[in-house]
Amino acid sequence: MSNDEPAPQSLGDLDPAEFRQRLHEAADWIADYREQIGARRISPQEPPGAIIAALPSSAPSAPEPLVAILEDLDRIIVPGLVHWGHPAFFGYFGSTTTAPGILGEMIAAALNVSAMTWRTSPAATELETVVLEWLRKMLHLSDEHRGVVYDTASVATLHALAAAREALGLDIRRSGLAGRTELPRLKVYASDQAHSSIEKAVITLGIGEENVTRVPTDDEFRIIPAALEAEILKDMADGHRPCAVVATVGTTSTTSVDPVEAIAAVCRKHNIWLHVDAAYGGAMALLPEGRWAMAGTDLADSIVVNPHKWLFVPLDFSVLYTRRREMLRAVFALTPEYLRGDASANAENYMDYGIQLGRRFRALKAWMVFRAFGEEGLRLRIREHIRLARLLASWIAADPGFELVAPVTMAVVCFSVRNQQMSLPQVNHTVEVIVQSVNATGEAYLTHTDIRGRTAIRLAIGNVLTTEAHVAACWALVRAVSASAA
Amino acid sequence: MSNDEPAPQSLGDLDPAEFRQRLHEAADWIADYREQIGARRISPQEPPGAIIAALPSSAPSAPEPLVAILEDLDRIIVPGLVHWGHPAFFGYFGSTTTAPGILGEMIAAALNVSAMTWRTSPAATELETVVLEWLRKMLHLSDEHRGVVYDTASVATLHALAAAREALGLDIRRSGLAGRTELPRLKVYASDQAHSSIEKAVITLGIGEENVTRVPTDDEFRIIPAALEAEILKDMADGHRPCAVVATVGTTSTTSVDPVEAIAAVCRKHNIWLHVDAAYGGAMALLPEGRWAMAGTDLADSIVVNPHKWLFVPLDFSVLYTRRREMLRAVFALTPEYLRGDASANAENYMDYGIQLGRRFRALKAWMVFRAFGEEGLRLRIREHIRLARLLASWIAADPGFELVAPVTMAVVCFSVRNQQMSLPQVNHTVEVIVQSVNATGEAYLTHTDIRGRTAIRLAIGNVLTTEAHVAACWALVRAVSASAA
Repeated sequence: MSNDEPAPQSLGDLDPAEFRQRLHEAADWIADYREQIGARRISPQEPPGAIIAALPSSAPSAPEPLVAILEDLDRIIVPGLVHWGHPAFFGYFGSTTTAPGILGEMIAAALNVSAMTWRTSPAATELETVVLEWLRKMLHLSDEHRGVVYDTASVATLHALAAAREALGLDIRRSGLAGRTELPRLKVYASDQAHSSIEKAVITLGIGEENVTRVPTDDEFRIIPAALEAEILKDMADGHRPCAVVATVGTTSTTSVDPVEAIAAVCRKHNIWLHVDAAYGGAMALLPEGRWAMAGTDLADSIVVNPHKWLFVPLDFSVLYTRRREMLRAVFALTPEYLRGDASANAENYMDYGIQLGRRFRALKAWMVFRAFGEEGLRLRIREHIRLARLLASWIAADPGFELVAPVTMAVVCFSVRNQQMSLPQVNHTVEVIVQSVNATGEAYLTHTDIRGRTAIRLAIGNVLTTEAHVAACWALVRAVSASAA
Repeated sequence: MSNDEPAPQSLGDLDPAEFRQRLHEAADWIADYREQIGARRISPQEPPGAIIAALPSSAPSAPEPLVAILEDLDRIIVPGLVHWGHPAFFGYFGSTTTAPGILGEMIAAALNVSAMTWRTSPAATELETVVLEWLRKMLHLSDEHRGVVYDTASVATLHALAAAREALGLDIRRSGLAGRTELPRLKVYASDQAHSSIEKAVITLGIGEENVTRVPTDDEFRIIPAALEAEILKDMADGHRPCAVVATVGTTSTTSVDPVEAIAAVCRKHNIWLHVDAAYGGAMALLPEGRWAMAGTDLADSIVVNPHKWLFVPLDFSVLYTRRREMLRAVFALTPEYLRGDASANAENYMDYGIQLGRRFRALKAWMVFRAFGEEGLRLRIREHIRLARLLASWIAADPGFELVAPVTMAVVCFSVRNQQMSLPQVNHTVEVIVQSVNATGEAYLTHTDIRGRTAIRLAIGNVLTTEAHVAACWALVRAVSASAA
């Protein structure tokens, strides 16, 4: 090294005093952002490429002051975001971040431990176990259900179906699926409303996208158990092997709820793994009046619930519960020498239940949210979101220009325009224009969905900052833009 | 709802003034933690179960004050952690978190956007593209290499091998692998030193664990290209189909470097996908004197590099570059109706390249680290870690009681005791006792590895807070405990 370079020891990290100052500035930044978020435009108007064009095409050679970086954050990045935390953001499954969740994430980032084995961070592993138990009880799952935390429901479902595949007893972990003439085709069943993560999992697992059977649903978008069983019987007659059935509690389009008990009976009869996707709908189990939605899930082999969807934990935090966690181990436990000493028999090593080795300390934020709100606080917020959804549904039902196109089972409302002079393509086009027009105002954010060929406005409530006034203002906006769209 | 309950509107989130106060307390907590981390015990001494026993077995019913929660964090959780950020933590691949990385994570948690499509958050998507380009240039990869950010290298490798599987042209996405009598067995090759994530990926993909061929390595733990080709030829003669070769730049045990150029020639000759695991070693490419380690990686079909390993970004942040990103799309692109409007042809939709749909705003922290340090600052820190590793190696080489058991290629040192009176099992036992004894002091943290039947102390340097004094103190500790262990 040349003599002009600073002594390496002086490089280290940011100067501690400066770091403290920047942390306090970031604290105020977050407090301001969250306090004033309702006054922001929700979504930007720039076309693709604007942010890229505003930034250098290479990393700087020399260090830059954090002050300048944070200025660019405010000037370039933040105006280009869709503000998922805005109380009038009603897209997708909303944003459920909260103050205690943000505090938990910031502390976890500072700790930066990896909970791959118990030994790599005992408290991170044990707090994961504690939080999983707390949530299991809140969901009223049996004490035979043991959990593991993943990042997303797509990954949790992938693991559930990997366990189901191994549970077939076909020696798939060791020998795989290819070039084995004795193996049948494997089949996975889900409703025509189920999430696309099932296809992604089935593709990944080598089962093949065409081996997902989409079972028809009834007029409330619930799987028809007799149709499911008919598909299973047909496949078995054709020499195929059913691998798993996926039931959904709270489908993405309409939050419909499959009849899990009847599906479980079909699965039991034919000895098929039942996985329940309750990524969104699982939160219903916290309400006495919502437990109907999770009825029968206790019978499932595996269940995914996403606290980052409707339990107020920031992205990412997805939980898989299973009665047969040993099957996850049978697929994924594999201890290399450099981790051998860590595989204590008396402790959980969560890396044994999955693909990921590096595991963030995700339990901390969930622990902080569940304590800061308490089960009662979680319940009241979920209940309020349902109340707001039903209130909106009542306004829609009372308006001659609109109609509900799916039952409101949770806190998502799907509706469309009602106009007997318009053809279906015209109606669908009008709905798309309404969604685009509302979003273009920057005052609310909606997404759309397709319900059996009919395009619907889909309005999801899940943000603790959302009040009746936000829902009412969005509804007024929808009516106003629809008047000019029609 | 009863009249005794608070009005739902008042529930919302934490009171803004209180949140601001807690954010500032958390800011000070983080500043204190980071400033004083070197004075902490690194690892706890409690047996498994202590944390679980100290916490309630159910979530509280009523809300709890955040002050009480943060007190429990200090009293129960933090003493039970292994402090990966401690400057004398030399286990695994160290901890590379930094002040700008922590600031980035805390702001990302407050924003809580999901970068699944461009439309769901344009700036998050475009900043991901920008950061990927910056890093690609720093790694000297060709401009044909396009990137995507995942959580971990295990997930990145899973995606790379899924793309390799699809690139075989066997219609695997659609038809899968099972029950297809025309399909051959698929084979994946890696060295006997390569990471266990390869087995996890191969198991997941339905290729089967026994279809991973572990190719022998030379006396510096590098794959022997002739041995690799011999395995490939044998498999082809047996009617199997090579799917991918995984070369490693910086193996987990000894940071050995496979001869990527020679391996690439074998892969090209037989038309096999080459994936390079440079999760740790990729950082070497930033140094002119380190570029030898990444020589030939430009020829690879895919390359994984983990900025959360040795580029000072907090967990999790793993990057996959590939010349054939269209193969990732061919496996994973699948757009459900509720995201159809988002799949703009003019913009990146990163969800199309992977399993995960919910995608945290990970680019922010990397952008802040790369700017705050600059390429020069990254380079100086990496260089300093290599200097410290070589310095330690020189001390070991000069000590009659110890010996190096692998070349020091990067910033990991593997060594053992040298004692001609002891049998190999005795030497191995002594090394395990040394590691345990050092860790029991709480003053340093080491892990061990196995090198062809020989247990070795493995000391990894990668923390920006680590100085020569920390390395010297750890070395003194090793010598002291070994004197009593022998």
